[in-house]
Amino acid sequence: MKRVSACSRCFASRPFSSTARRRVIRPITDLPDRIKPSFLERPDATLLSLHWPSPPRNILITKKKRTPGITNSLIEYTSHLTSNYPGINIILEPESASEIHEAVPFPVYTYETAPPNGTPAYLSDKTDLVCTLGGDGTILRASSLFSHATAVPPVLSFAMGTIGFLGEWKFREYKRAFREVYMSGASDAYAKLEFPETGTSPSPPLAIDDPLDKPLSYADIRGKAMGPNRTARVLLRNRLKVGVFGPDGTRINSSVDQDTYALNEVIVHRGASPHLKIVDVFVGGRFLTEGVADGMIISSPTGSTAYSLSSGGSIVHPLVPSLLLTPICPRSLSFRPLVLPANTPISLRLGEKNRGREVDVSIDGRRISGGMGVGMEVRVLGEHVKTPTGDWVGGVPSIVRGTDGIGMELKDEDHWVGGLNALLKYNYPFGDQDSGDSGGRA
Amino acid sequence: MKRVSACSRCFASRPFSSTARRRVIRPITDLPDRIKPSFLERPDATLLSLHWPSPPRNILITKKKRTPGITNSLIEYTSHLTSNYPGINIILEPESASEIHEAVPFPVYTYETAPPNGTPAYLSDKTDLVCTLGGDGTILRASSLFSHATAVPPVLSFAMGTIGFLGEWKFREYKRAFREVYMSGASDAYAKLEFPETGTSPSPPLAIDDPLDKPLSYADIRGKAMGPNRTARVLLRNRLKVGVFGPDGTRINSSVDQDTYALNEVIVHRGASPHLKIVDVFVGGRFLTEGVADGMIISSPTGSTAYSLSSGGSIVHPLVPSLLLTPICPRSLSFRPLVLPANTPISLRLGEKNRGREVDVSIDGRRISGGMGVGMEVRVLGEHVKTPTGDWVGGVPSIVRGTDGIGMELKDEDHWVGGLNALLKYNYPFGDQDSGDSGGRA
Amino acid sequence: MKRVSACSRCFASRPFSSTARRRVIRPITDLPDRIKPSFLERPDATLLSLHWPSPPRNILITKKKRTPGITNSLIEYTSHLTSNYPGINIILEPESASEIHEAVPFPVYTYETAPPNGTPAYLSDKTDLVCTLGGDGTILRASSLFSHATAVPPVLSFAMGTIGFLGEWKFREYKRAFREVYMSGASDAYAKLEFPETGTSPSPPLAIDDPLDKPLSYADIRGKAMGPNRTARVLLRNRLKVGVFGPDGTRINSSVDQDTYALNEVIVHRGASPHLKIVDVFVGGRFLTEGVADGMIISSPTGSTAYSLSSGGSIVHPLVPSLLLTPICPRSLSFRPLVLPANTPISLRLGEKNRGREVDVSIDGRRISGGMGVGMEVRVLGEHVKTPTGDWVGGVPSIVRGTDGIGMELKDEDHWVGGLNALLKYNYPFGDQDSGDSGGRA
Amino acid sequence: MKRVSACSRCFASRPFSSTARRRVIRPITDLPDRIKPSFLERPDATLLSLHWPSPPRNILITKKKRTPGITNSLIEYTSHLTSNYPGINIILEPESASEIHEAVPFPVYTYETAPPNGTPAYLSDKTDLVCTLGGDGTILRASSLFSHATAVPPVLSFAMGTIGFLGEWKFREYKRAFREVYMSGASDAYAKLEFPETGTSPSPPLAIDDPLDKPLSYADIRGKAMGPNRTARVLLRNRLKVGVFGPDGTRINSSVDQDTYALNEVIVHRGASPHLKIVDVFVGGRFLTEGVADGMIISSPTGSTAYSLSSGGSIVHPLVPSLLLTPICPRSLSFRPLVLPANTPISLRLGEKNRGREVDVSIDGRRISGGMGVGMEVRVLGEHVKTPTGDWVGGVPSIVRGTDGIGMELKDEDHWVGGLNALLKYNYPFGDQDSGDSGGRA
Ligand SMILES: NC(=O)C1=CN([C@@H]2O[C@H](COP(=O)(O)OP(=O)(O)OC[C@H]3O[C@@H](n4cnc5c(N)ncnc54)[C@H](O)[C@@H]3O)[C@@H](O)[C@H]2O)C=CC1
Ligand SMILES: NC(=O)C1=CN([C@@H]2O[C@H](COP(=O)(O)OP(=O)(O)OC[C@H]3O[C@@H](n4cnc5c(N)ncnc54)[C@H](O)[C@@H]3O)[C@@H](O)[C@H]2O)C=CC1
Ligand SMILES: NC(=O)C1=CN([C@@H]2O[C@H](COP(=O)(O)OP(=O)(O)OC[C@H]3O[C@@H](n4cnc5c(N)ncnc54)[C@H](O)[C@@H]3O)[C@@H](O)[C@H]2O)C=CC1
Ligand SMILES: NC(=O)C1=CN([C@@H]2O[C@H](COP(=O)(O)OP(=O)(O)OC[C@H]3O[C@@H](n4cnc5c(N)ncnc54)[C@H](O)[C@@H]3O)[C@@H](O)[C@H]2O)C=CC1
Repeated sequence: MKRVSACSRCFASRPFSSTARRRVIRPITDLPDRIKPSFLERPDATLLSLHWPSPPRNILITKKKRTPGITNSLIEYTSHLTSNYPGINIILEPESASEIHEAVPFPVYTYETAPPNGTPAYLSDKTDLVCTLGGDGTILRASSLFSHATAVPPVLSFAMGTIGFLGEWKFREYKRAFREVYMSGASDAYAKLEFPETGTSPSPPLAIDDPLDKPLSYADIRGKAMGPNRTARVLLRNRLKVGVFGPDGTRINSSVDQDTYALNEVIVHRGASPHLKIVDVFVGGRFLTEGVADGMIISSPTGSTAYSLSSGGSIVHPLVPSLLLTPICPRSLSFRPLVLPANTPISLRLGEKNRGREVDVSIDGRRISGGMGVGMEVRVLGEHVKTPTGDWVGGVPSIVRGTDGIGMELKDEDHWVGGLNALLKYNYPFGDQDSGDSGGRA
Repeated sequence: MKRVSACSRCFASRPFSSTARRRVIRPITDLPDRIKPSFLERPDATLLSLHWPSPPRNILITKKKRTPGITNSLIEYTSHLTSNYPGINIILEPESASEIHEAVPFPVYTYETAPPNGTPAYLSDKTDLVCTLGGDGTILRASSLFSHATAVPPVLSFAMGTIGFLGEWKFREYKRAFREVYMSGASDAYAKLEFPETGTSPSPPLAIDDPLDKPLSYADIRGKAMGPNRTARVLLRNRLKVGVFGPDGTRINSSVDQDTYALNEVIVHRGASPHLKIVDVFVGGRFLTEGVADGMIISSPTGSTAYSLSSGGSIVHPLVPSLLLTPICPRSLSFRPLVLPANTPISLRLGEKNRGREVDVSIDGRRISGGMGVGMEVRVLGEHVKTPTGDWVGGVPSIVRGTDGIGMELKDEDHWVGGLNALLKYNYPFGDQDSGDSGGRA
Repeated sequence: MKRVSACSRCFASRPFSSTARRRVIRPITDLPDRIKPSFLERPDATLLSLHWPSPPRNILITKKKRTPGITNSLIEYTSHLTSNYPGINIILEPESASEIHEAVPFPVYTYETAPPNGTPAYLSDKTDLVCTLGGDGTILRASSLFSHATAVPPVLSFAMGTIGFLGEWKFREYKRAFREVYMSGASDAYAKLEFPETGTSPSPPLAIDDPLDKPLSYADIRGKAMGPNRTARVLLRNRLKVGVFGPDGTRINSSVDQDTYALNEVIVHRGASPHLKIVDVFVGGRFLTEGVADGMIISSPTGSTAYSLSSGGSIVHPLVPSLLLTPICPRSLSFRPLVLPANTPISLRLGEKNRGREVDVSIDGRRISGGMGVGMEVRVLGEHVKTPTGDWVGGVPSIVRGTDGIGMELKDEDHWVGGLNALLKYNYPFGDQDSGDSGGRA
Repeated sequence: MKRVSACSRCFASRPFSSTARRRVIRPITDLPDRIKPSFLERPDATLLSLHWPSPPRNILITKKKRTPGITNSLIEYTSHLTSNYPGINIILEPESASEIHEAVPFPVYTYETAPPNGTPAYLSDKTDLVCTLGGDGTILRASSLFSHATAVPPVLSFAMGTIGFLGEWKFREYKRAFREVYMSGASDAYAKLEFPETGTSPSPPLAIDDPLDKPLSYADIRGKAMGPNRTARVLLRNRLKVGVFGPDGTRINSSVDQDTYALNEVIVHRGASPHLKIVDVFVGGRFLTEGVADGMIISSPTGSTAYSLSSGGSIVHPLVPSLLLTPICPRSLSFRPLVLPANTPISLRLGEKNRGREVDVSIDGRRISGGMGVGMEVRVLGEHVKTPTGDWVGGVPSIVRGTDGIGMELKDEDHWVGGLNALLKYNYPFGDQDSGDSGGRA
């Protein structure tokens, strides 16, 4: 990573002049360690509430690729954060970092591109909060950066254009949304303080010699909390733990010999081969069936509205602790999708009958380099997001909105039900409501 | 039918005073015989074109039941027809006849209500054209009045409110639509003549002593044809021939010992019994399978967008000569809907295993009185609508539009494709196009 | 028989002469109170293990109706229980009781038939264990006897003929199966004792003056336990809590103003009406959608292989804490089945648009008397089977086998996976394995 | 093709010694021209009957690849044909030709391998009959050799191992089957003559100087016809005419600028790309919908039991003149499969939204070299197999059996219905019929 090592060099000399500071790309290893929030149950509610022990500082922002307009939004957003919140450090993907670092008056941090099937080193040790600008694909890519981490930072997603299924904030709401997340969990005491956005002078940047690793305190912040009930709401999406193993038992899904977490699903698929594949399916260690098909999906409930849905799977609410097994174009009339307990181990094995034919394995829409040959196996288990002691850990903590656009409190179900209706056109009624301009029926 | 016999009496004395004439309900037996149009192929086209040998006179109009507003439309429509077209006779269902006959200045004709599982006598011998005011249900009811007739008159359907799948004209288009149908097939010669609607004086009523059974000629009509290409377009929907037989071979679907024609489908169903039914299915005389299910549908292609679709059947274009076998909630993972050649006989037999349990049989949404017990059988065959000599006969000749609202010529496929998109919301795309006001996503 | 006559003797203080005694049908109110077992988690296992505080005594046995052969099996089974186990009391449904009480040398207990939409009084206070002889329908009927009880006794089900999906024991296994259940949880101490069936002398009759309501102790039993690991395995099937309410809020599902528990599902359905119904669906209090369909199913995971499956629902493992919403023949292309968290309230409301049309409501295949008209509502919630303190309560505790026919320990998944394959013919492969005798392909 | 050109040379000198003759591989251009049979309607029947004007001579035999045992069957079969029937010429695929020509005492003919997207030159001008040894894949490959021919020779298919859906003869039946085909249409006159297989001396080989291009006459054959009713039965499977066009309108499906015929289907598919594709679908020239999916299938009724079935399509009888449009994993809840009239043109266009992403196009399981980029289009039309004058032409004439294994006449429906049941396990009933050995339920 030439670019990063370059910044490493400039960082080595530590030229802390304000100008220098603005132009460089710095390594994330320079950042203070991550602040981990906790997720608390709310009475009679299904969504959790976000509580920061101290305000988040290291913000990773990912954006949709190959979409020019988004770069401006990225600059606008990061500028807003750095000028309105004290101690904010902006982490960008290497590409974005080199794209914008000269255009912004603050330093950007980045990391070295990960090896194939790996994740960027240190990223999960340094990131307090993830923000995404894009669609579901951008959220999936952000989540894949933490696909070897047990604790993913909270994810705040802004749709650029069409709203997707995994995120639900519009970009034009970014000020309010970020503030809600930032202040989430700050005690009432600060509710009276005034807050930058209200018009008073922006909070002074941290003094140059501020030790980067001293946490902020909400008491230091000249702003106001959103009120005690206005903690951000979190939908903790549980993931799949996926291992891909060679015939000799060596792991091939990951460069770090670890399970890879998937947010949506893991898929084995015939890919470019025009022929059927034969996949043995084991559930809880017992042989279930031989799948003859284009491929096979093991999906989380979150992924139930993605590829699994297209393949005929049921829609499963993200809070049902389960795994889905959904065949893709099975050559059988009776291969119905299954919903299994999240803690049931499932594996897919490529048997002898596929001589010479490889299958593609993809996790959340990204192919694992190497593919999968005869004798190889994909092993999956659901992630536990509630510990025996009742704590909520792991998963992808997704920030959902607590009020609608005009300030009305939303019920917990509103997100999901609203999404089904608005995005999936669930149970769209027949009739000619909008036939106005449709040729033959005009 | 007291009322009808009453009119019969008044009619017997033939007191043709103008007043008397307006108040009475007359029997259809008094009407001249039906004029049968022919249906001609159009070059490179899939829809047929309608040709009357002489202008239609006896117009049956059915309307949706229990929907008050429609009565006014009925009066408006019949008044338009009788004042603008010579020699028009209005036939109404008994209920409608008694509802409006006092309100209109022309006689109305009606028939005696049919016995259970029967059709009104003489109706198919007297009706030149059927018009319906309502939705698909009204069209189905109209078609059921001819369910023992091999030649159904052309059907011109006006939607009141929502457009359905079987009809596509809006009521506000009735003047243009009727004229198009009325003039359809009149030779060019008449194109120069002026037409009532253009403002000149209405055509004189037929002289009192005009024999009712002398056909009109287009030459007599002071109007103009729509031009040689502007014949009405007809989609000849082929029907199913359905026979229901008792264990002893006696027919029970019909009081006249004849097959009953269905436009959509015939269904056997558990009805009020909360238990599975067991139905043996025979195709081409060969035992195909034992269906254990809520019920079984045998549908025409026209019916493929009705109940069969709800039960998971494919959408079949009305011009594919075929029958559909679609199970309703089958207790098997592998009972996939079938599409069979229209000329394949299919039968459904209620076997011994259903001891003591009856099933409901319905044709186009109307239950056959009597139900069906063990040993009974439903036999179905598709109707042939093209004779070996290439003539088009039978079916339900449905008038479809030839131009869009603003005068543009429509292609033959436009109707069906337009209907899929506008009515069925076929392949409705995901996304938040209209999420503007949807709570959680607002 | 000896032992029982012994007890008979203890009953002698009441005026029950030994002969008279054998012929009578006694009320269940005469029985000692129920013994409630506990259900314990097994390490690394998904099924629970059954533990009786003291041996079960009051055994309710239900059998399939209208199937003559089963009566003999009932006599054989009850005779085995009463002659081999001390203190066993046989409870039968009123019909069975009067059918066999004269043929058996021991008293039978029964209860008064319940009022419509009610359950038999006292039954759940008196029954230790339920045994069923029949199929899934018999199990559903047995469970419906406890449809107002929060704690259903364990259910041991014997298939007569075809094995169903809810039970998996064959009748010929009844001796071993009952012993396993009876001894389940007896401490090791008794493992050394010899047991009646081994051939040695039957356990001593209970002393004459044993009060009927003093529990037995395993120490009293001269038998042997099946070994410490050989407790019976229990699949705790969670149920649905169903309330049906009139437009005025009065409850109509139950004569006792209580929720009714369903094992499979609750259904609203058009029944004998040949027309579509319109049902408003609410999830978590939020309006989800207007269902236009034959009907709507809300199912437990257990019921996912019943009606819901036939209607296109996914197969959901019984241990996934969830509810299924599955439409029946919906008139929409996009009404996909949903899987929701078990604790999400769902309701179905019959809106104004259905003027004059009633729907049928059935719970586990039994219609609620009265049906459901406009304004009425079905409210459903999943049953919690694990308390916050970690205890397992409620549900239908179904005894599953722990070893296969030849003594091999079974894994917990074996039951379900085996059932999918053997019963549902899940993913049955294509090919001509058994085409040997199939006409055209022979 | 060195080998072939080599034989061309040796053939040039025409060294007709019996030994030389046996070892060489000859070019098909040396063969007499093809004999085209006619297909006649049978009264009250759906299958056609095969009539040769004179006995077939040039027999193309294809076999499954990479399956050693089949080579022996090929030798056995060709030896049988050449020693028992006069004037038989064996055509093999180049690979098979070089594999067996040294092992057999008769010459084999072959052709030059076709260029990409092409078919072998002259093959369809020379082949009287095609025999396949293998499964459906072998039949598809054989049919692809004629994918630019309007008249495919009759195909007689022998299953090696499992019976497939497209063929239904077992290899062990080859003698009877071939004789039935060979004699099909011979007039009654020959029914009295004795036939080789009956034991008498084999027919003499044609004299060396027999001109190869003089047709045989059934009168020359010392055998017996199978009787006048025993003509072979033919299912004329209609194909799809497929054209693939570049954005500039140049054709890319074929090296000969001609439509390619498909027996099963044409597919566009994302292939190795893990992302959704966007395909515009036009029906009858009208835009139907934008498909967002893994891909799209346009299938013949024959192909309805292949990939289309796996993707959720209905099963369509091969005699329903139709095309199927079936999406593969569509990202829409409402993209239901369609069945369209065979003569409706359908096209699939890869629109602008897929920037930079190619799709795979495959015909009958073989990828078209080149793939398909933005702006490209697949155009499909059903093949007409009945001319306006009532003749049956084109399609793939598949020989089906007329009697079952034990001599019983089969009905026309038996093949299809038998295949559904035996091969597809259509509507396989639930229950434990064969649960005998299935672990948990044993
Ligand atoms: N036929 C299909 O439905 C296919 C689906 N996919 C899905 O795409 C995902 C990868 O996304 P991209 O890289 O953007 O690929 P992409 O460009 O193929 O788009 C995938 C689409 O799926 C949507 N999506 C992703 N996750 C979703 C979820 N959990 N619920 C509802 N919609 C969701 C996105 O909004 C986007 O519209 C995979 O995880 C897989 O689920 C991938 C290939 C084919
Ligand atoms: N997911 C799926 O169902 C897929 C299906 N295919 C089908 O495979 C065909 C190519 O065959 P192969 O080269 O042997 O590939 P293959 O090795 O992928 O096997 C295809 C299977 O489909 C069966 N099959 C082929 N045509 C059939 C028909 N008309 N009706 C019923 N079954 C049929 C064959 O018996 C074989 O079992 C394609 O035309 C396509 O229809 C190809 C890829 C995936
Ligand atoms: N079309 C369908 O699939 C219908 C299904 N049913 C089901 O029948 C049940 C009532 O049973 P019966 O009184 O015996 O009626 P029934 O005589 O209609 O038989 C129902 C069938 O469903 C099976 N079944 C019941 N519960 C099951 C489960 N949990 N998993 C798998 N299979 C199961 C039974 O073995 C039997 O084969 C209802 O709870 C409902 O689920 C009822 C009506 C129609
Ligand atoms: N679950 C379902 O989908 C059910 C469907 N039906 C259908 O209803 C028909 C009877 O109609 P109604 O008396 O009005 O009953 P209804 O009041 O139940 O309405 C049936 C609905 O089906 C529509 N429809 C009728 N024929 C159609 C066609 N060929 N294509 C597309 N949509 C069509 C109508 O517009 C109406 O929306 C039956 O022939 C049957 O096909 C009847 C009962 C249940």
